[in-house]
Amino acid sequence: MTSLTRAIFRPRSIALIGASADPTKHSALPQKFLAQHGYPGELFPINPRRAEVQGLRAYPAVVDVPVQVDHAFIMLPTEFVLAAVQDCVKAGVGCITIMSNGFGEAGAEGEARQAELMQILAGSNSRLLGPNALGVVDLHANVALSANEVLALPDLPKGDIGLISQSGSMMGAILSRGAARGIGFSKLVSVGNEADISVAELVQMMVDDSETAVIQLFVETIRNHEELRRVAMNAHRASKPILAYRLGRSAVGQQLAVSHTGALAGSGRATEAFLKDIGVAEIRNFDAFLDAPALFRRSRPTGSRIGAMSTTGGGGALIVDNLGERDIVVTSPPAAVRERLAARGITIGDAPLVDLTLAGTNAVTYGAVLEEFLASEEVDAVVAVVGSSSQFRPERAVAPIVASTSTKPVAVFLTPNALRSQELLRAAGIPVFTQPEACADALRAWTEWRAPRVLAQVRRDDVIALLQQHRPSDRSGITLNATQSQAIFKGLGIEQAHEWLLGPQPDSWLPDDVASIRYPCVLKIASADVPHKTEVGGVRLGIGSASELRAAAGEMLVKVKTALPNARIEGFQVQETIVGLAEVLVGVSRDPAAGPMISVGMGGVLAELYQDVSLRPAPVTQDEAHAMISEVKAFKQLTGYRNLPKGDINALAKAISLVSTLMCVDGPNVAEAEINPLVVLRDGQGVRALDGLVILEGGQ
Amino acid sequence: MTSLTRAIFRPRSIALIGASADPTKHSALPQKFLAQHGYPGELFPINPRRAEVQGLRAYPAVVDVPVQVDHAFIMLPTEFVLAAVQDCVKAGVGCITIMSNGFGEAGAEGEARQAELMQILAGSNSRLLGPNALGVVDLHANVALSANEVLALPDLPKGDIGLISQSGSMMGAILSRGAARGIGFSKLVSVGNEADISVAELVQMMVDDSETAVIQLFVETIRNHEELRRVAMNAHRASKPILAYRLGRSAVGQQLAVSHTGALAGSGRATEAFLKDIGVAEIRNFDAFLDAPALFRRSRPTGSRIGAMSTTGGGGALIVDNLGERDIVVTSPPAAVRERLAARGITIGDAPLVDLTLAGTNAVTYGAVLEEFLASEEVDAVVAVVGSSSQFRPERAVAPIVASTSTKPVAVFLTPNALRSQELLRAAGIPVFTQPEACADALRAWTEWRAPRVLAQVRRDDVIALLQQHRPSDRSGITLNATQSQAIFKGLGIEQAHEWLLGPQPDSWLPDDVASIRYPCVLKIASADVPHKTEVGGVRLGIGSASELRAAAGEMLVKVKTALPNARIEGFQVQETIVGLAEVLVGVSRDPAAGPMISVGMGGVLAELYQDVSLRPAPVTQDEAHAMISEVKAFKQLTGYRNLPKGDINALAKAISLVSTLMCVDGPNVAEAEINPLVVLRDGQGVRALDGLVILEGGQ
Repeated sequence: MTSLTRAIFRPRSIALIGASADPTKHSALPQKFLAQHGYPGELFPINPRRAEVQGLRAYPAVVDVPVQVDHAFIMLPTEFVLAAVQDCVKAGVGCITIMSNGFGEAGAEGEARQAELMQILAGSNSRLLGPNALGVVDLHANVALSANEVLALPDLPKGDIGLISQSGSMMGAILSRGAARGIGFSKLVSVGNEADISVAELVQMMVDDSETAVIQLFVETIRNHEELRRVAMNAHRASKPILAYRLGRSAVGQQLAVSHTGALAGSGRATEAFLKDIGVAEIRNFDAFLDAPALFRRSRPTGSRIGAMSTTGGGGALIVDNLGERDIVVTSPPAAVRERLAARGITIGDAPLVDLTLAGTNAVTYGAVLEEFLASEEVDAVVAVVGSSSQFRPERAVAPIVASTSTKPVAVFLTPNALRSQELLRAAGIPVFTQPEACADALRAWTEWRAPRVLAQVRRDDVIALLQQHRPSDRSGITLNATQSQAIFKGLGIEQAHEWLLGPQPDSWLPDDVASIRYPCVLKIASADVPHKTEVGGVRLGIGSASELRAAAGEMLVKVKTALPNARIEGFQVQETIVGLAEVLVGVSRDPAAGPMISVGMGGVLAELYQDVSLRPAPVTQDEAHAMISEVKAFKQLTGYRNLPKGDINALAKAISLVSTLMCVDGPNVAEAEINPLVVLRDGQGVRALDGLVILEGGQ
Repeated sequence: MTSLTRAIFRPRSIALIGASADPTKHSALPQKFLAQHGYPGELFPINPRRAEVQGLRAYPAVVDVPVQVDHAFIMLPTEFVLAAVQDCVKAGVGCITIMSNGFGEAGAEGEARQAELMQILAGSNSRLLGPNALGVVDLHANVALSANEVLALPDLPKGDIGLISQSGSMMGAILSRGAARGIGFSKLVSVGNEADISVAELVQMMVDDSETAVIQLFVETIRNHEELRRVAMNAHRASKPILAYRLGRSAVGQQLAVSHTGALAGSGRATEAFLKDIGVAEIRNFDAFLDAPALFRRSRPTGSRIGAMSTTGGGGALIVDNLGERDIVVTSPPAAVRERLAARGITIGDAPLVDLTLAGTNAVTYGAVLEEFLASEEVDAVVAVVGSSSQFRPERAVAPIVASTSTKPVAVFLTPNALRSQELLRAAGIPVFTQPEACADALRAWTEWRAPRVLAQVRRDDVIALLQQHRPSDRSGITLNATQSQAIFKGLGIEQAHEWLLGPQPDSWLPDDVASIRYPCVLKIASADVPHKTEVGGVRLGIGSASELRAAAGEMLVKVKTALPNARIEGFQVQETIVGLAEVLVGVSRDPAAGPMISVGMGGVLAELYQDVSLRPAPVTQDEAHAMISEVKAFKQLTGYRNLPKGDINALAKAISLVSTLMCVDGPNVAEAEINPLVVLRDGQGVRALDGLVILEGGQ
């Protein structure tokens, strides 16, 4: 255990700065809870107006405490916090937790205060938890250093789940709910604004903690994605699953997270893709968050073939239906399973749910079906539903589940309020769920659980050289024009539609230039000052001849000049007409929370209306790009759906992978880039970029 | 109370046919449970092999019982059931419940057995519950006539919720879960296969029952949609909300329902639309099913402006996020509310969540905010979240909720395991939720709750006359060809694209006929033998002149004849080219469970891939059609989204309404009809049907 881990979770001495003697005050609670849960170290209330607080000698300031303070917990009104922190630094306190709010989460003034705070800490040996943090609990060491009122609960169960929460209140709620069902934690910590100690740093402490086997995150945002990716890999190597419950899945929730904790305004979908990419399993049902660790502790997923068995048709259907809504179709019992059961005198059908009915509600039948399911290599996990018998007769169908010795996951759903059966199953380490949505969600998360992906190291000197031609001279970024952007994509290796560039005056075009064009063609105005060409009449399709081209260009000039009199017209872009099967948008950008992301979806407004876009941290390999393509519903049209002609999915995957590498070059950094549209031709005929955009970040 | 209601729920005498003396058998349970819960009537075990069962005199057959038997409960093996029913009919038993399975739910053999059963009952005074039914419970009358093991629970709470369940096991599970939180029922009944007594008939009994205030349905299918619509209207008039939990929301769940209870293979989405249309609120979260009645008992929705307040940012965000995922954006506190609170010394922001934080966790502040929210006419309901304080200090933020006297709904979510606070709130009749998904789902269901719609009576003699020209001569249906179908839609009043019909030999076309066509045009083969014209080269677009038309027709003939040598070619359909903003599919059909339905979505495969189709029971008015249009995401493109040109939505709504009336004509009945595509032109320019299909049912 590092000295920091010790100072945070197992301090030998704690100073409670702002400890109140009034037991109705929140600032009286940590002292009370530490005593109640048997804190074994030394406790120092800091309160300049009192000689004694709750039976302990009080000190005017932390510098007056006669021993070295490992952990100081600050509960002062905002305006007194900085002075107290200065004291702590002076006293060489190892970890300072600031419960007070009014910092990074509180607008510009708060941000300034937080910056000042960090100035005070800079260069010191003191580390900071918070501000706006509700404290830490280490159940194995009897440390309950928090003002959360649920700590009034006696006999909190000890366990192996380490919880890191961006919400202090929810840390308490999860602890309380776990205690009610006998689910224990090792350590719990509320991180507040993460001004210093981050979620990632705490994950590493949990990885190193021998009492923690499963790591849980209750998060609203990601503050350091590179670091979190690194420690998630460490957790994976240590075989410690990380489960996350994430706020901000809806647009309004995302907006709240920003105002609530000063979170970065990233997109919820990017964070979701990021967590999945680093091997963190996202649990979407709140109740499942408590019961899922038992499922994830068992084994990693080998596939998503889930067998379903039940003593009750209705209860079984409840689970099968909830799984179906999450795109998990339970697997019918394999023929080999049915044959082996038949040999044991048990006949089951091939419906996706094995409904044993009342007649099969006994240990022999239920046990045999479960055993054969678990022994089958065609089944990756089993969901076992038990109906009314589970309330008063666990010996019937619950006992054989408890007795099972397979390490293959069995998720149990009990239809009635069967407390004794729940207890038996939990004691045996078997995941048991009381809500059908929780059961289905945990299974979904388990089947979707992946090992952290190692991001490829890509070096494209040729592309860097291209980008360096446009290196911004100052701190503001630069938007390349269409021709420059397309040159970058061409340099990456993505085929472009044929283009001919013509000057700004149609009258002076040479006959040979115009004759060499392949008709029918597309005419576009070329101007960095016209970002939305279509809207000002700057695009014309289906031009059939040279004379039509000249006429169209003349008309276009008039229209554009009328709409944007000050636009500098560089000339005209003429492009061959390409008819493909689909027009796709491939883009990269930097999400404020989750970092560089690659996205792909159908072009046009429907992708936005349906939110039908696949996202991944960039870069991605072609294999990963194929996985992305399969996530976009609209792309089913390109893969043989209803006998529609197949598109060149391989070429699309290659293009996605190439575009994603733009985020790895560090000549001038790419802020954002997209090809829109990228036309997908028939299988074997490739893709063609028709238009593109590259925006470079300003210099550092 | 009718004599049937009495026989079902409050029988003065019960015969338990097949009652076992072995207490480990399921067939021993009803007798045990009836005694345990204090059944006040007379009980007669029927068992020919015993003189006594569980301390009561047993009779060989129900005809031997010396008194009139009100309710007989049959627990025999399938093969003995019919004889027992014959006995019951002979003995004039009022209600016969058959728990045994092996009937309509068990394949062809079971269906034959069920038909035989109905023969025995025909003309008798006995009514049937089941088969495959688990019994009835009337808590106010101490009748626990069921083999469901959860009835071993003592002290079942009495309440005002009447539950009708198509799953016997889930009836028990819901009773058990309710009891655990003190939620009581009036009557519960398992309907099994509904061979005789239906869900609808039982709903009417609950409407008439003075002890029932809220009716709950746990359903997998609808067996009599017209009757259910009628009784749902009666429930509405009696101000008794009907809440449903529906299995079969996923495709696999729907499939299971069919195999599990012999349900009709209707579409889950049609059933969903039907329930909503008849004023039944569908609850999608299982836990919410128990706690939602408290919300629905309060008042009908006045809108969906939900105010959100919390003592905890994280807990509040949990609810706001879950609401957001269900398309409910919580409303920011109205300016008037903020002003009135400021006058009371309480400052709140205009963020969508009023986060009172620890500082506001007291009865005065929390109570004041709640009061002002409830008093505001700009707020339809309030969701009140209470964090850690609710576990041990209900006096802080829970007490002011309990004290509130408003009838405007307040849904409460408690973040920790706060049993005492739950109890206080439930006792006060306030809906309290322990799962964030349940809280959000109940609020969603409440805001979406509508009064039952009265289907318009439509009489279109003109359309009937048109349809009668094609009246099928036998029992098999008839598919009208494109020209016939389009004539029907034209007769309905839907504008068609201009068409010219030409004979099957292009060489013999008259020059005048060809010259009168408006070019560019579309050429289609006309043949009832070519259902999928595009696939065999039977459609050609963009034909620019008469000579091109002749040439194209010649080529088309060759292609079609090659693909379908036996197809009888009636001629050619030539159609004007119509370019609109969108191509839409409008269709009617008869869902096996939910009856006549009208649907609308975008044409093409995307509507199917995204399931982006709106459904309603037919017919619909134009207003209702507008509501349907607003449910289709893709139609946002036609209503000003991102400055796209607006489509003629009024004309589309009118067309939807007209097509829906096809389901009301009873000349020959329409089995199915669709316009595909219906082109939507710019606002004010109407719609044009380009192709259509009408299928008539066979004669009766």
